[in-house]
Amino acid sequence: MRLVEQRMNAQADQHHPDLQAALLYLLKSGGKRVRPTLTLLTGKILKGNGDQLVTLAAAIELFHTATLVHDDLIDGALLRRGNPTLNTRWSLSATILAGDFLFAKALKLAVEAGSQEAVRLFSETLDTIVNGEVTQLFSSRGVASREDYFRRIHAKTASLFQTSTEVAALICPVSKATIDAVSQYGHEVGIAFQIVDDVLDFTGDQAIVGKPVASDLRQGLVTLPALYYLEANPGDEDIRKVMSGLNGDGRVERVVSAICQSDAIHKALDEARVCAERAIAAIASLPDDEEHQALVELAYYIVDRLF
Amino acid sequence: MRLVEQRMNAQADQHHPDLQAALLYLLKSGGKRVRPTLTLLTGKILKGNGDQLVTLAAAIELFHTATLVHDDLIDGALLRRGNPTLNTRWSLSATILAGDFLFAKALKLAVEAGSQEAVRLFSETLDTIVNGEVTQLFSSRGVASREDYFRRIHAKTASLFQTSTEVAALICPVSKATIDAVSQYGHEVGIAFQIVDDVLDFTGDQAIVGKPVASDLRQGLVTLPALYYLEANPGDEDIRKVMSGLNGDGRVERVVSAICQSDAIHKALDEARVCAERAIAAIASLPDDEEHQALVELAYYIVDRLF
Repeated sequence: MRLVEQRMNAQADQHHPDLQAALLYLLKSGGKRVRPTLTLLTGKILKGNGDQLVTLAAAIELFHTATLVHDDLIDGALLRRGNPTLNTRWSLSATILAGDFLFAKALKLAVEAGSQEAVRLFSETLDTIVNGEVTQLFSSRGVASREDYFRRIHAKTASLFQTSTEVAALICPVSKATIDAVSQYGHEVGIAFQIVDDVLDFTGDQAIVGKPVASDLRQGLVTLPALYYLEANPGDEDIRKVMSGLNGDGRVERVVSAICQSDAIHKALDEARVCAERAIAAIASLPDDEEHQALVELAYYIVDRLF
Repeated sequence: MRLVEQRMNAQADQHHPDLQAALLYLLKSGGKRVRPTLTLLTGKILKGNGDQLVTLAAAIELFHTATLVHDDLIDGALLRRGNPTLNTRWSLSATILAGDFLFAKALKLAVEAGSQEAVRLFSETLDTIVNGEVTQLFSSRGVASREDYFRRIHAKTASLFQTSTEVAALICPVSKATIDAVSQYGHEVGIAFQIVDDVLDFTGDQAIVGKPVASDLRQGLVTLPALYYLEANPGDEDIRKVMSGLNGDGRVERVVSAICQSDAIHKALDEARVCAERAIAAIASLPDDEEHQALVELAYYIVDRLF
């Protein structure tokens, strides 16, 4: 991971000091580095080339950071990981270009890693993520179906998690079955990760999350806890009104409180735990080494980081 | 070109009707399709695979369109090719995502064409273009040097022209010398194209150009006609003031009129003509067929489209 950080920071070299400062700010303000960690662990289990893996892991994290920059701009988000977002400090132009810049660097690193299959996967993932965002933008408010929800979180999160593990396997001398196994691991862990994020949107400490409580629901986005609550309380007027944009009179707060007091949160977390277990089962036949154990722990950690 | 248009339009398939409409609007509002034409002509001379060439040409034009969408948003441009820009009709979010979407599709097509070298070139060109934009954004106003100018127009325009021809050669069974020759042709034609665009910024019909006259100079960007004028009139107070942002009192109009009445316009056009001739010389040893003749005519047309 130290080498991955170096590779990422090096992308700011030989640029204008203001741009360098902004990139280093973005990269320093951290995040958990879950995606590049997945790439490195998967690649280590499968005996991949270390330098190629570092390059791919850096590409994955820069790619992720690029999508965050445009996302935060689109959502008008003020905080990310407890720090002010780039769009609160920079002009619109600079923020758009910073996202494009990071994406260009990510693509260049992916190409440098020298695997045509890896670049193909990158391009498909970009397509999936952007399609998901575009679909969400054009969807009507307050549509509530599990199918819709899982399609959305696949595009938004699980697709890049899946790519993080699959891309590592693609540069290793392994069978198609092994590639599929780590790909499924990445996908399941990504789904679990996003479910937990969606739970945190209801239960998390807002000073850390950096968004108002139930920010998704306020925008008419129905996530898993709200879906479970709706299933159990199909006649609830308050949540229906919030979903269609009628947020006044403390209605959001009433809905949040009702959801948190129901068993919707626990049901959602149980579902995340099932995903984590499916992820672990998917890689059961991989060599049982230290890195395999780390992937197992990581899957549990993703679900349990709440507590 | 008909197949290229079909390939581009097909990228809007299976998407939300509003997004489809926007993409078709962007693609229909036209432009001269110079870049994909360069790809097709170059590939035809060098006996490239037709389907691969169509795919690459579509990728190039979608890539170009993606950069225009973000550029117009950043510049707050109202018209493009005489039509309202996407940013005047759509929200900020939708416009950012439309650019990202087009870029994702361009990259996907580039990967589909199946040449690793072509994808590498794509990624380097994206890097060059975005770096150029970022550098421009962070540069201080009113810096005037030929070196700076040519670096800027290489990044902004000539790099993608160069890629348009080079990418075609990369999928053909030709020597390194041939690749270098068509690459140089693309680069020189691109420089000529941008010089002429910069002349049009002073002399063009504003209803067609869709920007206020001397829009670059108003932003502190010194292009070739202004550089020639400055060299001949180093003590001119008006242009110095405009370059540093003091645009009031009809000063821009006085400067434009002075530049248009000087020989700066002709000198700039002469320089564009020299580039076109260098472009034609670069491909002199290529097979002397119909497509070669078309490339020669295209180089002249790019300079003479003013008249």
